[in-house]
Amino acid sequence: MIYLTRRERFNAAHRMYRDDWDDEKNLAVFGKCSNPNWHGHNYELFVTVCGEPDPETGLLINLKDLSRIIRQRVIDPLDHKNINLEVPFMKGRIASTENLAIAIWEELEEPLRHKGITLCSVKISESENNFVEYKKNH
Amino acid sequence: MIYLTRRERFNAAHRMYRDDWDDEKNLAVFGKCSNPNWHGHNYELFVTVCGEPDPETGLLINLKDLSRIIRQRVIDPLDHKNINLEVPFMKGRIASTENLAIAIWEELEEPLRHKGITLCSVKISESENNFVEYKKNH
Amino acid sequence: MIYLTRRERFNAAHRMYRDDWDDEKNLAVFGKCSNPNWHGHNYELFVTVCGEPDPETGLLINLKDLSRIIRQRVIDPLDHKNINLEVPFMKGRIASTENLAIAIWEELEEPLRHKGITLCSVKISESENNFVEYKKNH
Amino acid sequence: MIYLTRRERFNAAHRMYRDDWDDEKNLAVFGKCSNPNWHGHNYELFVTVCGEPDPETGLLINLKDLSRIIRQRVIDPLDHKNINLEVPFMKGRIASTENLAIAIWEELEEPLRHKGITLCSVKISESENNFVEYKKNH
Amino acid sequence: MIYLTRRERFNAAHRMYRDDWDDEKNLAVFGKCSNPNWHGHNYELFVTVCGEPDPETGLLINLKDLSRIIRQRVIDPLDHKNINLEVPFMKGRIASTENLAIAIWEELEEPLRHKGITLCSVKISESENNFVEYKKNH
Amino acid sequence: MIYLTRRERFNAAHRMYRDDWDDEKNLAVFGKCSNPNWHGHNYELFVTVCGEPDPETGLLINLKDLSRIIRQRVIDPLDHKNINLEVPFMKGRIASTENLAIAIWEELEEPLRHKGITLCSVKISESENNFVEYKKNH
Repeated sequence: MIYLTRRERFNAAHRMYRDDWDDEKNLAVFGKCSNPNWHGHNYELFVTVCGEPDPETGLLINLKDLSRIIRQRVIDPLDHKNINLEVPFMKGRIASTENLAIAIWEELEEPLRHKGITLCSVKISESENNFVEYKKNH
Repeated sequence: MIYLTRRERFNAAHRMYRDDWDDEKNLAVFGKCSNPNWHGHNYELFVTVCGEPDPETGLLINLKDLSRIIRQRVIDPLDHKNINLEVPFMKGRIASTENLAIAIWEELEEPLRHKGITLCSVKISESENNFVEYKKNH
Repeated sequence: MIYLTRRERFNAAHRMYRDDWDDEKNLAVFGKCSNPNWHGHNYELFVTVCGEPDPETGLLINLKDLSRIIRQRVIDPLDHKNINLEVPFMKGRIASTENLAIAIWEELEEPLRHKGITLCSVKISESENNFVEYKKNH
Repeated sequence: MIYLTRRERFNAAHRMYRDDWDDEKNLAVFGKCSNPNWHGHNYELFVTVCGEPDPETGLLINLKDLSRIIRQRVIDPLDHKNINLEVPFMKGRIASTENLAIAIWEELEEPLRHKGITLCSVKISESENNFVEYKKNH
Repeated sequence: MIYLTRRERFNAAHRMYRDDWDDEKNLAVFGKCSNPNWHGHNYELFVTVCGEPDPETGLLINLKDLSRIIRQRVIDPLDHKNINLEVPFMKGRIASTENLAIAIWEELEEPLRHKGITLCSVKISESENNFVEYKKNH
Repeated sequence: MIYLTRRERFNAAHRMYRDDWDDEKNLAVFGKCSNPNWHGHNYELFVTVCGEPDPETGLLINLKDLSRIIRQRVIDPLDHKNINLEVPFMKGRIASTENLAIAIWEELEEPLRHKGITLCSVKISESENNFVEYKKNH
């Protein structure tokens, strides 16, 4: 089995909070990540697809296609945006990296399957010290 | 001459804009970096001091002292903050990386000189592709 | 399933040897890593926990808690120490990166389970070219 | 289970093409990677072996042995070479990173098994944005 | 003085040789870098411009402009190309990283000066171990 | 002017202390870096030479020659060694990174000049956060 990973990057602002909690409770649970004036990150996104290479081309998927799907579905809605306020697929979700990985999986799985490609992992690096990966049925 | 560099990191939100311009003009000049809902970065800060090592210790400066000064003067006011709204030493300045480097220099020069240390360079990495350095009399 | 990884770092001295072998045999088997005067590394530690995010917070575990447990149990005993002479959980073990990964797993598994968290992987980078990972039941 | 990974590097030229297609069709399918005058990469290779550490040495495999096998079988034939024209184990294969990972697996599996070592993964980084991994029975 | 650095990347094939030397002499002087079948690299290019930020925008130069000039003048002619055969500004020059840095300086200096910007340094990383920088009047 | 930088790496143990101070005073001044049982680092060394490329080869210096000189003079005496106890050129010096940079400069300057090459900078990374550079007449 071949696993092919494409890295893309986006910069965004966010804030950890629940709107049914007041600022005090948000601060107690989420600490400085709950700052009402926002903070932000350079996120790195690693999308892994898996399967057998096409014998005709030796490729699992054309990287240009993979990159285009990730950009259209995920990077364009996220890059230089406010994750809490402006990203349709994060509406109603707490802006944690965990939830972001799940939402990105949901955005990518169908358009990749439409091209005959299996999504295997979505990994996000929020900083050089923190990484979140979402894998199904592993 | 010995140059000693300490790296520190901070995450922050910002927006490129002038408040005497409307959103349309800000957008025309600054592009997506002017998003009114903010975006953010993992900034890396490289502070370089220079001089001769102390013959008694072999050190230019105790790294713990250097790190403490940078944290108190620069990282604590910036980390997980909104650069435009919350950082005293950026008040009245456009939140560009260029201006940030100059402001950080101004914050650090005096407390370092007070410990007999010469500040030589302030360098900021805003992303893996963009770096700004401020050096005086180079 | 969500996998959350926290990176922590420590610097330590060590030496590869068995005390029931003489220096000559240790040198023959372990090479320069067996230098009786020690050598050392900047180790990077990647601790991965896994499970479902808490629906109330969107988090698998509060990163501050995870970092604190790793620091108390693993980093404080290892950082700026001699792995062969000073680290309680390495007593009686050869100071290989493989054994270090297993010992760190044993130090972390119980306190994490106590917080309802499943440990999934302990990975150590000894240099930019060498990595060891310990995973159970994979 | 312990997973030990060794990183090695090589620089090589290649071109994506099928010789039963003309340049126009190669260009249409493979884009600029099909340039008839070649292009090249700094490849990073991550070879992962797995098993239980030897209780006598605490090591899964002596890193010097692992590195020597990788260098003899894989790096020497690839480094500073043209993958399409000069690398015996790539003869008759399209020079994709996917095929390269499979061919390197085939080169390493037997000599490692001969030393009692199980090969678990071959991963190649072609650029900072593109990675291919080959794992069997995963 | 502010120094702003933009990183861009390109992949290319090359070969170290003089056509007035035979292969044997080229091999003796340049070693494996002289392979007649080419080899290649992922090059990283760091272009540094310097000056005073524009007080109206806080920027030394609009990064989009800087990136566009570098791409048009340098990256497009080099990326996925053969440096010896296909790059106009390397015609007649030995394809060393030193000569590449000088040629890129010559390509960029005039169009940057045309926008009122001073070029200060051109730095190329050919591998993680080798870097070449060209600076004038330093 | 061309600046060519070669990176080499070494792993070593060391301890910050003066033998005319007792352990208590060493600990008070140098903190955990003074642990009598040693600690260690993966050091990265960046040696920069400068001058004009040889018009016959396009090279400032043959990288194989530069690497060989650095390895013989600096890496072999330091790698997998105890800096305080085993490194001739550090005898009688406090094992600070500052002193190490100066000593490495002194080891390299003469053999490089003997080959007609000017040494311009010696830079050492002791960790991802701490760097020391030694430059003369800058």
